[in-house]
Amino acid sequence: MSKYTALDSALGRPRVLIIGCGFGGLEAARKLQHADVDVTMVDKTNHHLFQPLLYQVATAGLAAPSIAAPTRVLFRGQPRITTLLGEVTDIRPAAREVELKDGTLLSYDHLIVAAGATHSYFGRDEWATFAPGLKTLSDAFEIRRRVLMAFEAAELENNPVRRAAQLTFVVIGGGPTGVEMAGTLTEIARHTLSGEFRRIDPGSAKVLLIEGSPRVLQAMPEALSAKAKLQLEKLGVEVRLNARVTLIDANGLEVETGGGAHGTPANRYRIESHCVVWAAGVAASPLGRLLAAATGAETDRPGRIKVQADLSLAGFPEISVVGDLAAALSHAPGKEPTPVPGVSPAAKQMGRTAATNILHRLAGRPTQAFHYADYGNLATIGRNSAVVDLGTPFGPLRFSGKLAWLFWLFAHVYFLIGFRNRFVVLMDWASAYWSFQRYARVVAHVESDPNEG
Amino acid sequence: MSKYTALDSALGRPRVLIIGCGFGGLEAARKLQHADVDVTMVDKTNHHLFQPLLYQVATAGLAAPSIAAPTRVLFRGQPRITTLLGEVTDIRPAAREVELKDGTLLSYDHLIVAAGATHSYFGRDEWATFAPGLKTLSDAFEIRRRVLMAFEAAELENNPVRRAAQLTFVVIGGGPTGVEMAGTLTEIARHTLSGEFRRIDPGSAKVLLIEGSPRVLQAMPEALSAKAKLQLEKLGVEVRLNARVTLIDANGLEVETGGGAHGTPANRYRIESHCVVWAAGVAASPLGRLLAAATGAETDRPGRIKVQADLSLAGFPEISVVGDLAAALSHAPGKEPTPVPGVSPAAKQMGRTAATNILHRLAGRPTQAFHYADYGNLATIGRNSAVVDLGTPFGPLRFSGKLAWLFWLFAHVYFLIGFRNRFVVLMDWASAYWSFQRYARVVAHVESDPNEG
Repeated sequence: MSKYTALDSALGRPRVLIIGCGFGGLEAARKLQHADVDVTMVDKTNHHLFQPLLYQVATAGLAAPSIAAPTRVLFRGQPRITTLLGEVTDIRPAAREVELKDGTLLSYDHLIVAAGATHSYFGRDEWATFAPGLKTLSDAFEIRRRVLMAFEAAELENNPVRRAAQLTFVVIGGGPTGVEMAGTLTEIARHTLSGEFRRIDPGSAKVLLIEGSPRVLQAMPEALSAKAKLQLEKLGVEVRLNARVTLIDANGLEVETGGGAHGTPANRYRIESHCVVWAAGVAASPLGRLLAAATGAETDRPGRIKVQADLSLAGFPEISVVGDLAAALSHAPGKEPTPVPGVSPAAKQMGRTAATNILHRLAGRPTQAFHYADYGNLATIGRNSAVVDLGTPFGPLRFSGKLAWLFWLFAHVYFLIGFRNRFVVLMDWASAYWSFQRYARVVAHVESDPNEG
Repeated sequence: MSKYTALDSALGRPRVLIIGCGFGGLEAARKLQHADVDVTMVDKTNHHLFQPLLYQVATAGLAAPSIAAPTRVLFRGQPRITTLLGEVTDIRPAAREVELKDGTLLSYDHLIVAAGATHSYFGRDEWATFAPGLKTLSDAFEIRRRVLMAFEAAELENNPVRRAAQLTFVVIGGGPTGVEMAGTLTEIARHTLSGEFRRIDPGSAKVLLIEGSPRVLQAMPEALSAKAKLQLEKLGVEVRLNARVTLIDANGLEVETGGGAHGTPANRYRIESHCVVWAAGVAASPLGRLLAAATGAETDRPGRIKVQADLSLAGFPEISVVGDLAAALSHAPGKEPTPVPGVSPAAKQMGRTAATNILHRLAGRPTQAFHYADYGNLATIGRNSAVVDLGTPFGPLRFSGKLAWLFWLFAHVYFLIGFRNRFVVLMDWASAYWSFQRYARVVAHVESDPNEG
């Protein structure tokens, strides 16, 4: 019962296949939309997700449609761009075709692989049940459910020890997502839920942020990391640095500190919690391994594909890899190549370069090396709290606090897709700011995961 | 491991327990919020759902939070109202206590049961897998997924017969929900998705509305039913009246017409479809049976509890049943009692009467008989199409078409809870009206149900 859908170009136009409609894939398609090529974009969801605001869906601040734009709508006026919903299960570079889960085969002349990243539990995949990560809308709904249900369970719980465990929230990983989640969780406990419970004080909830390294926000300069930690603590987050998670189960986790290079003795302790969020590890999409096996491309430790300077694969100039799946280097003129960070501006720029290089190849011109234009780095922490590190022609501009928060806010609204979303998100934020309320506190499936304990 | 949480009133205030936070339960709690009683409201979800607009969530026109208000927020400023999330598994009238699924026991002095209704497949529960109904947010998400995924599957399908089945949508039941669903589905196919597909024409999709009786919208006067049918057909819906469903499976359904009172021969035929929506049968919440067994109360065929004139149960003056779970009669002064319809204004009015009667009993005054004030009936069909039947002091006022649609629209926005929701819903509708776009076209779980075929 295998299906076959050849991508046919009636006019004999070159066929470009893009896997993934995240920032990289979307930007590549946009760059190609007016070119004389037929583009097919395949993704396993029907929407482009604005991942930088996914934590807002997980913390009930935004409704899912505000940050998810249906891919079809984005290309409705572009007859040369075809959108398909399907999961890629195989890539066959020799045959120049890609297979979908339902058996559909798609052939291509040029392939852009932008399949992104997923969580990594560092080989402890059994932790996924107890500490969900935050990459997809389903993840966000699950975390939203666990957070809100923990307070509900605490209100019904008579045993003070179990009640305290219900009111303990643990975020593992001090990167941007972990910092945002921890900061927002304290805001929910201290402000949003205030006055809504009769038997518990939601404000007594503990929010812990566990980070294995000596500082949060490692991509930031040290001074901003320190500021971020202070701001987190001001919001009520307990930040535990140099703390490694050694076990997670249905009722909590075990953490180890010390025992490292400084010769301090190891100290292992347990935290009882029913709501643990994983924001620690990122691994390349499993498609990376598949592609590496088929092309002989090298991968790095998180499974990303090492690409050539122009983002293509050695021996396969018709295949490019962009975004979080690519281990790419930035080639600034006259400088040593530097690694490209796994952030959305980099994914977008790679998507544009890969698309441009396809057009160059079709025109018989040499391809360009990828050069990442780094405009800076920003992370929000919570209400009125953020850190910003901008590159300017006059040197770095670094600031934190309320101004940084406003900068973060408008930057994110600006990059959201669609006027409606920008408007509604701004409105929801304004209303949340004044009222401390969070609008999307809806849980459709109350039932807990059977594995959850 | 049984839990016990007695509802205690520190000041010895009477304890009122309300089961269900739909229209009836919510209105009862509101009526009691300033009275000298302690109210506990228990529900299996964390939100009050504005069910009249649930079909908009199912058809991707609205995000879930726009029609679901967190119950806690509604009573945050009312320290005497406690909200609990839990599923009632037993009611024990003799002990005046209620048991939740987790073992929690709640005792009461006064009980209002407002547990509502669920789908009925008339004894064919196996149909639920193939033809989901529309009562909860989960139901709406599942229908949204099936509708949007049918078009996606059709775009990937090479076989024309299977493609036609993917593009056939069947709604079973010609009540308000069925009519709304069918009308909106044609709008999605003809307008919303226009220009977004490359291999199929979404406008070629067939939408069938199957109704067992000789007319749609049976609660309406016959002339308005006929107008509704005409408007549906103008939108592109195939309306099949006097058609009984005899079978539903993973690939479609069987329908029988004729063979009835008029002596026409029975004609049975099959419709191939992968997206069937059930809007035909309603049954009382299973709690009804439980309560009837415990109190000896009578139930009617759909399982509703027959209540006394003041909505209480014979022999149990401290128990009232309101909303869709109650088979109540309206006692207009000087008239014969008439059955109360299963609509939200009736549920609200019953909630108010039940609450008032508790206050009367506490004050030692006689209870009131319930009197349903019928302000009319309205149903929307689709863009610019609705039918309205209003009772006025000068006789019935009936109209249809665009004016009726505007009336329907503003009536629904008016009754939505919360300024934010009213504003956003109006904005989403205005934008949908002008652009034909539907904003909430997001599917979080693409995977089809394993039972779906």
